[in-house]
Amino acid sequence: MQQRSEITRKRIMEAATRLFANAGYNATSVDQICKEAGVSKGAFYHHFSSKQAIFVALFEDWIVALDDGMKEMHKENIPQTLLYLTNMIPLIFETADEHLPIVLEYWLLAGHDEVIRAAILAPYRHYQDLFAKLIEEGMAEGTLKTINPQAAAQVIVSLAVGLLIQGILDPKGADWQKVASESIQILMNGLGKEDIGLSL
Amino acid sequence: MQQRSEITRKRIMEAATRLFANAGYNATSVDQICKEAGVSKGAFYHHFSSKQAIFVALFEDWIVALDDGMKEMHKENIPQTLLYLTNMIPLIFETADEHLPIVLEYWLLAGHDEVIRAAILAPYRHYQDLFAKLIEEGMAEGTLKTINPQAAAQVIVSLAVGLLIQGILDPKGADWQKVASESIQILMNGLGKEDIGLSL
Repeated sequence: MQQRSEITRKRIMEAATRLFANAGYNATSVDQICKEAGVSKGAFYHHFSSKQAIFVALFEDWIVALDDGMKEMHKENIPQTLLYLTNMIPLIFETADEHLPIVLEYWLLAGHDEVIRAAILAPYRHYQDLFAKLIEEGMAEGTLKTINPQAAAQVIVSLAVGLLIQGILDPKGADWQKVASESIQILMNGLGKEDIGLSL
Repeated sequence: MQQRSEITRKRIMEAATRLFANAGYNATSVDQICKEAGVSKGAFYHHFSSKQAIFVALFEDWIVALDDGMKEMHKENIPQTLLYLTNMIPLIFETADEHLPIVLEYWLLAGHDEVIRAAILAPYRHYQDLFAKLIEEGMAEGTLKTINPQAAAQVIVSLAVGLLIQGILDPKGADWQKVASESIQILMNGLGKEDIGLSL
């Protein structure tokens, strides 16, 4: 039964993803999600308290998928680790999958909806802290200049958010993975102790 | 008459801005814009061919306001000029004014609407070219390392887009002008020929 319940939950989330991506969050009703998923309203409300709750769950699932991809990311030194992270870009777009068209809607809704806003800001701060910790490790191991780790982490997060937005808006406008690795190399020239000759 | 027509146009745009910001683009009708502005539908369609057209016009007006702010921006050298541009951040938020809550909606709609998408990508490429040209000038004047100007411009644009998104989502999460100037200083350490000791 546990397994069957999981399958139902997954089916509801997939149906919601399709509807949100096609019609948008506001234009999609719980009734439509139930119909698309082929489940009763009772089944829906067993898993999710509201349309808002399923929206937050979709976002959180995406972040979990990203975090899984970032495991085992440590390389021989911090500059290499940061550069290696740009390999994540295809994973971001891949895990985003059908989510991608609604990533912008997450941000839009965040402006109006405190619950969604909190759900989005939490992982964003999580990444800010993660990068600050990496920068501190880089200074400790002697590969990075002494710098404000929070400021440097902020640059990396801002860059990532900006690249993600542009990749969504204009997917064919550039090779976004190449752009990301060039960006990190330029940044590492500013953060690194010498020209560290990074390569992928 | 010319002047009166301009006043009507401005009144329609202000009404549309308020309604888009409060209810969103999709939930706002031309009828509501006319009522809010106190003008006839005839007057509306004299100025704008559609709701989409007024949305594009609002975006373009914002870009014009930004460009006006960027005039006279050249300082003694390119690194100083780039750093000086971070002074634009309060201007961006100020000119965005009531526009700001709907900036995200511009991006969201761009995913669904080719006309709006084109209107948004045009200034984005304009800034990409503008920064590439500044980087080339910096290499020519000898303050910047030899680097791919397009790649460096891409970093600056990505950073700006990322900072703008975060500033909208989380206005009190940081002093965004300070974050922007720290970001440019970190970037200039990577692009500049030596530690150029930038200060605002």
